[in-house]
Amino acid sequence: MSFKVPEGDNRERHVCDSCGVIHYINPRIIAGTLPVYEGKILLCRRAIEPRKGYWTLPAGFMENGETSSQAAARETIEEAEAEVNLQGLYTVFNLPHISQVYMFYRAELIDGKYGVGEESLDTQLFEEQEIPWDELAFPTIHRTLKHYFEDRKSDHYPVRTEDLRPPYRKS
Amino acid sequence: MSFKVPEGDNRERHVCDSCGVIHYINPRIIAGTLPVYEGKILLCRRAIEPRKGYWTLPAGFMENGETSSQAAARETIEEAEAEVNLQGLYTVFNLPHISQVYMFYRAELIDGKYGVGEESLDTQLFEEQEIPWDELAFPTIHRTLKHYFEDRKSDHYPVRTEDLRPPYRKS
Repeated sequence: MSFKVPEGDNRERHVCDSCGVIHYINPRIIAGTLPVYEGKILLCRRAIEPRKGYWTLPAGFMENGETSSQAAARETIEEAEAEVNLQGLYTVFNLPHISQVYMFYRAELIDGKYGVGEESLDTQLFEEQEIPWDELAFPTIHRTLKHYFEDRKSDHYPVRTEDLRPPYRKS
Repeated sequence: MSFKVPEGDNRERHVCDSCGVIHYINPRIIAGTLPVYEGKILLCRRAIEPRKGYWTLPAGFMENGETSSQAAARETIEEAEAEVNLQGLYTVFNLPHISQVYMFYRAELIDGKYGVGEESLDTQLFEEQEIPWDELAFPTIHRTLKHYFEDRKSDHYPVRTEDLRPPYRKS
């Protein structure tokens, strides 16, 4: 595998020396949900690195052949054994330093049922004043929760887009 | 290169037989703009396949290390030699059958200046009644323009999300 500019391109790519196949490496999408039940938010404590032991919203890499909302719902089942009704795209974050794009959907937790998926140590419903702000896994989680509690005051949830780069500011 | 389920995973991946590296292939993001100048829309006639000769909005694959809005602005320069002021994310489309996610930004064409980029045969500003509806390159272009002309009546442009699968309906 070499790193060179293919003919007709203007960027270096990973090219297989034997077969010539170009392996394009593009930004990856992480899809997740903000599951709500009776005003409480479902968070998952991560069982895996990075940020093992910290709290997150259910989210993970979108796979080929699915939509971003299907990916978000699938991750919610995998990490929290929770079925949700999606209520629309809510936050979109660019993290260019790690070439990731996050897409979170607001979601209603069906019948308030959830469990602990394989990638979670624990899952729990939190009231706003119970949110473990200092133990959140990622800035995307922090920002999505902040937006949500702010927007909930007016019950109006436009799509929120942000670019997040380190050092992350807490606001 | 083999196609098999790596340890700890639940899906088949492309794995290198000699070094063991896993090549994850995930959905790709296509970022673009809807450039507007004095109410007219800038379209580009494609010089390359697929859909050579058909009209498109400037858009292309997002690259590692950039944000989706940077990718959208870069593609607008590359395809239409046009500088734009971005006005926010506008349409998000999932095309799961080809594992693509489109993100279009509304944009203001600065000073009405544009040219013809390498991947375009022609570029042109169109009034609403001049749009070549039957010669648009992709359903994502059709839908973005339809949303725009509808939303323009109220001058209110919420983010529009849709899943598009063939056969595409024209509406």
